[in-house]
Amino acid sequence: MNMTIFGESLDARSATVPESLAGKRIAVLGGTGPQGRGLARRFVIAGLEVALGSRDADRAVEMASELSTETGRTVIGASNAAAAGWGDVVLLVVPWDGHARMVKELSVELAGKIVVDCVNPLSFGKHGCSPILVEEGSAVEQAQMLLPDSVVVGAFNTISAVLLNDPTHERVETDVLVVGDVREATDLVQDLAGTIPGVRGVYAGKQFNAHQVEAFTANLISMNRRYKAHAGIRVTDI
Amino acid sequence: MNMTIFGESLDARSATVPESLAGKRIAVLGGTGPQGRGLARRFVIAGLEVALGSRDADRAVEMASELSTETGRTVIGASNAAAAGWGDVVLLVVPWDGHARMVKELSVELAGKIVVDCVNPLSFGKHGCSPILVEEGSAVEQAQMLLPDSVVVGAFNTISAVLLNDPTHERVETDVLVVGDVREATDLVQDLAGTIPGVRGVYAGKQFNAHQVEAFTANLISMNRRYKAHAGIRVTDI
Repeated sequence: MNMTIFGESLDARSATVPESLAGKRIAVLGGTGPQGRGLARRFVIAGLEVALGSRDADRAVEMASELSTETGRTVIGASNAAAAGWGDVVLLVVPWDGHARMVKELSVELAGKIVVDCVNPLSFGKHGCSPILVEEGSAVEQAQMLLPDSVVVGAFNTISAVLLNDPTHERVETDVLVVGDVREATDLVQDLAGTIPGVRGVYAGKQFNAHQVEAFTANLISMNRRYKAHAGIRVTDI
Repeated sequence: MNMTIFGESLDARSATVPESLAGKRIAVLGGTGPQGRGLARRFVIAGLEVALGSRDADRAVEMASELSTETGRTVIGASNAAAAGWGDVVLLVVPWDGHARMVKELSVELAGKIVVDCVNPLSFGKHGCSPILVEEGSAVEQAQMLLPDSVVVGAFNTISAVLLNDPTHERVETDVLVVGDVREATDLVQDLAGTIPGVRGVYAGKQFNAHQVEAFTANLISMNRRYKAHAGIRVTDI
């Protein structure tokens, strides 16, 4: 496997990782895009074992080196396939265009894993950003249909890439909405979200209610334009 | 017109109404359901001129009397048609089943008005609550197509009816997401939302992004079940 490890030894990691995630390997596919890089960065800072995957393994290695330098921690850079095979929890953070193809190609590597789909099916037109109607209902449901041996959870759809990557923002004040059908998996992903300071993972329904969480990002983009902000969501009364 | 007015004279109202809403008549159609009643109740408390409409004018009159007794303020009870004709800003708070028919029937009364569509196209099955796919895209877009001479704005989709009606909750800590194509109208509806203590009206996109706001209520219902709460939304960083 083409994997390059940067930084300190794994033993010297922070002890702030919740018990449910102890020993769990987190792979971020599409980890060289802004959202993937930002999530990987936060998980590295939290003390998790992280591999950053990319279609272009060299770019992944380069960015892993960069994150390792920034954080002083170990980061693995690899191809998407190698990162998927390595990880216990595998995040998909790729453009919608490449979603179905990538999921199909990696079905063997992803079997038996928790797959966290972070993809928002959106189109950007002259009039603004709007959701794409997905035949299967949502990116999450499409991935689950193509990955019958994986447990697919939707999460991290609405968190700002800008804030995730911004070293002046130690905290990101937002909730991460987690959708999925398997309680053990959604609980774990809620814990994963909670490793980012300021973030709370909130259960937000089953897979068949993933669509509107993915699509809601179009509204956040409208709000960002109107209010010159990096809008996020907090759920009240819970 | 079959209208019955209860309570004090209009002159004695509170002066806390924002300037944009001064002299504006607020009609709540479907005002005898929990959501409609709760919104009407809050607008009455805020000092707005409010008519409560219902298919059954007698029920509207009865509930207007009840709200007037609770609040010590004037409340009008009327048929939906009479309330629609009276109002400057008309809220639709009816079940999805009756949405298209009602909008068609009242197109004359609603012409030239700001119509605030609060309807969530949802179906409740054994497996839980899920969004209904609307041919026009959303309730808001359906209403706009049927009401070419009105300005349709979506709002109040995600605010808890229970909290709106609860006298022990003076404040409702949530944002109201407002979608629409006409800035003057969305601004006004944001102001209307802001008359409820704790509530902030937030612009959340154009009509073509109304669907996911309407559909998101299905997720809030899932959260309410999981967390035994009356979940709402706050937008962060704005």
